[in-house]
Amino acid sequence: MSSPSQLQAVLDRVDADFDQSLERLFALLRIKSISADPAFAADCKAAAVHLAADIASLGFAAEVRATAGHPAIVAKAKGNTGSRPHALFYGHYDVQPVDPLELWHRLPFEPVVTDHADGRKIIVARGAEDDKGQLSTFVEACRAWVAVTGSLPLDLTIVIEGEEEVGSKNFVPFLEANKADLAADFALVCDTGMWDPTTPAITTSLRGLVYEEVKIKAANRDLHSGIFGGGAQNPIRVLTRILGGLHDEHGRVTIPGFYEGVKDLPPDILAQWKKLNLTADSFLKPIGLSIPAGEDDRLLIEQISSRPTCDINGIVGGYTGEGSKTVIAAEASAKVSFRIVEGQDPMKIRDAFRAYVTARLPGDCSAEFLDHSNAPAIALDWNMKPLAAAKRALTDEWGKDALLIGSGASIPIVADFKRTLGLDSVLIGFGLDDDNIHSPNEKYDLQSFHKGIRSWVRILAALAEAPKT
Amino acid sequence: MSSPSQLQAVLDRVDADFDQSLERLFALLRIKSISADPAFAADCKAAAVHLAADIASLGFAAEVRATAGHPAIVAKAKGNTGSRPHALFYGHYDVQPVDPLELWHRLPFEPVVTDHADGRKIIVARGAEDDKGQLSTFVEACRAWVAVTGSLPLDLTIVIEGEEEVGSKNFVPFLEANKADLAADFALVCDTGMWDPTTPAITTSLRGLVYEEVKIKAANRDLHSGIFGGGAQNPIRVLTRILGGLHDEHGRVTIPGFYEGVKDLPPDILAQWKKLNLTADSFLKPIGLSIPAGEDDRLLIEQISSRPTCDINGIVGGYTGEGSKTVIAAEASAKVSFRIVEGQDPMKIRDAFRAYVTARLPGDCSAEFLDHSNAPAIALDWNMKPLAAAKRALTDEWGKDALLIGSGASIPIVADFKRTLGLDSVLIGFGLDDDNIHSPNEKYDLQSFHKGIRSWVRILAALAEAPKT
Repeated sequence: MSSPSQLQAVLDRVDADFDQSLERLFALLRIKSISADPAFAADCKAAAVHLAADIASLGFAAEVRATAGHPAIVAKAKGNTGSRPHALFYGHYDVQPVDPLELWHRLPFEPVVTDHADGRKIIVARGAEDDKGQLSTFVEACRAWVAVTGSLPLDLTIVIEGEEEVGSKNFVPFLEANKADLAADFALVCDTGMWDPTTPAITTSLRGLVYEEVKIKAANRDLHSGIFGGGAQNPIRVLTRILGGLHDEHGRVTIPGFYEGVKDLPPDILAQWKKLNLTADSFLKPIGLSIPAGEDDRLLIEQISSRPTCDINGIVGGYTGEGSKTVIAAEASAKVSFRIVEGQDPMKIRDAFRAYVTARLPGDCSAEFLDHSNAPAIALDWNMKPLAAAKRALTDEWGKDALLIGSGASIPIVADFKRTLGLDSVLIGFGLDDDNIHSPNEKYDLQSFHKGIRSWVRILAALAEAPKT
Repeated sequence: MSSPSQLQAVLDRVDADFDQSLERLFALLRIKSISADPAFAADCKAAAVHLAADIASLGFAAEVRATAGHPAIVAKAKGNTGSRPHALFYGHYDVQPVDPLELWHRLPFEPVVTDHADGRKIIVARGAEDDKGQLSTFVEACRAWVAVTGSLPLDLTIVIEGEEEVGSKNFVPFLEANKADLAADFALVCDTGMWDPTTPAITTSLRGLVYEEVKIKAANRDLHSGIFGGGAQNPIRVLTRILGGLHDEHGRVTIPGFYEGVKDLPPDILAQWKKLNLTADSFLKPIGLSIPAGEDDRLLIEQISSRPTCDINGIVGGYTGEGSKTVIAAEASAKVSFRIVEGQDPMKIRDAFRAYVTARLPGDCSAEFLDHSNAPAIALDWNMKPLAAAKRALTDEWGKDALLIGSGASIPIVADFKRTLGLDSVLIGFGLDDDNIHSPNEKYDLQSFHKGIRSWVRILAALAEAPKT
């Protein structure tokens, strides 16, 4: 058990060592570990090797472990006594692709600290937040504990994967195959956000994700619209007609059965959410919008966190270069994803989407589907013991009550931890809505990084004192 | 006036020189004169210089002439007496872009003669037909006349432009500025097709082309669909919804006023077209289709030649790379074109399309438009004198009556010749529906090239004997 003076010494160490923490983060950010693009496979491996070596330097038994895809890292360390709980920390070293590159103000893998429009200091790079910056808050907190006390306040396993951004397809079998090795009392996941720049939060519900790619094919080759226009079916016409019908005029998804099993929020939660007063002005104005685009009979906070949605994430077909070309393309494709909520079965949603598209195909057209993700929604136990300890620690660090919130994003690993390892997860992170994750100019507030490290220092102390589950 | 024995000598010369004609065509095909892409501007100039030098070698006064875009060629030669009509020949040396390159069986600018599936010999390359192969049939016919008789049977001006595939925006002002220099009795345009591989045709009506690009913008940056999905407007959703509504379930275009001024075919023409018996089996089966996709109460031949159409020629937005990315794009765009017919005003169609899109924009979205083409439809005089002479010559060469047909494609220059130079045009070409123009693996039948040259040899003789207009 750590004394208050010991805790203060570790926090002081974080402050004193912060410039070095930043340099270590920069070294990690310079590695182009884009998991979606096979051209960057060697960079993914390099990121894993780099991180494992750094974690090993803190006294962990750290290994780079092969999976069927990009490798994972497993690192273990004993705490300073044996009776404390054993936590499994999770993060991911892989990052999203960087295109459109021309919209970045700086090169995405050359991190810098710069000034945000409103004066906040920010770290800019692909992965600055998601998830290299976030996972580094935890690694740096461990480093400070080891530096000051020579050990950690509880038993820790750190597991870091390299395929989160592409659906963790090879990591889940890896968990299955290493159940015994990864045994712990609960999981800590650092891949979520704060409520706002000064209010910490723990995420207790997550939407799931069904992500489909659909390709419509018509003629056996591209055609000249002068010769065939009017007579030949155009797959872009078919694709836009089908996708353009996915929402009705009230913002509801039109796929039959889509809302089956979706429950309304309990009145007490809805009342609590109303009090948070998330408005179009505060949430949408910074991104240049003013009108909530979801179901028009729902609060904005429901639209983005407790209601299921459908978004077309990409579409392409025909001639897309400069100028004009009078072509009728042979095929057109789109990437379509669904954020799903508790009560929705991802496989049923996937099948309903495929049936919806297939039923609307005119003659001469075929559709091919590719499954990129089908992860269910998660609702965590709000009364879990480690959660209460973590909430207390966050409140101490930020001087403000930590909120328990729902997230619109999916972190499918949370369901996988429960299913494969039997672990409940506590989701704590320091991201902000304006971090541009998955977009050009991704950033992480310097304060998120600094106070994020300090937060984990306090959380580790609090967890060491808390009952095991 | 040429004697029958002189004509036969010129035709024999074409046959004897055919291998060299092919070599000269190959040299032209090797030049990457893609007008749409600024990266190929030097290649366009090289094509103009190459062609002008070749035409000059036939005794023409040939010049490469600057325009505000890619240069044009103007070449003049006097016929062997002064009393014959003066014809202005038109072609274009520029070609369409080649993407998707991976669908070409051979490199697009390395021409070869190979076997078509059904045993026909074909020339394969970008531009093999459109329009390098076609314009070369005329140049090679002139070469044969000059080789055998030392001159041409009538006064000729050859004008070849370099921006047909991008809307001739700079060539039309060039015509305006050079009216006196380009005076002639009528124009010959070689950029159209035959009825089938053994039946020659003269095109007497052409659809016009309105080609628009539309870009929908929503948020001020790309967004993460986990954070913003459900709350933020998605421009791909908006674009597909708008474009997906452009056709009704009967294949009719839904833009208000779109069919205003469009007339039904005269009963006698309709009866004639019905006899041509253009079926889905003959026309669509070769491209892997079976069901006419146009207005379901119209014949297929009407759908592709006398009825106006709308096609989406390209669409792009969001993430289109490998794998998945949970992004809500800031913008999405599409290229949309309309084949229009006699009675439709291109500017009215353009404005109606823009109004249609704008009226359907939800809040928070804006639309930007770019005008790539607005050319009216053309109906030529079926009783023009040079046309009768050319029809007779074609019938002689192919041993089959030449048909007078309507074309679904636009050749906007025909309207420009009438407006700027006061010239009627005779449209003769040797293309086939399966030539893959504007597509990968563009080809030109070896027979089209060979008998095309022979056809022009006969047409020049027939025109020299015909009344001037």
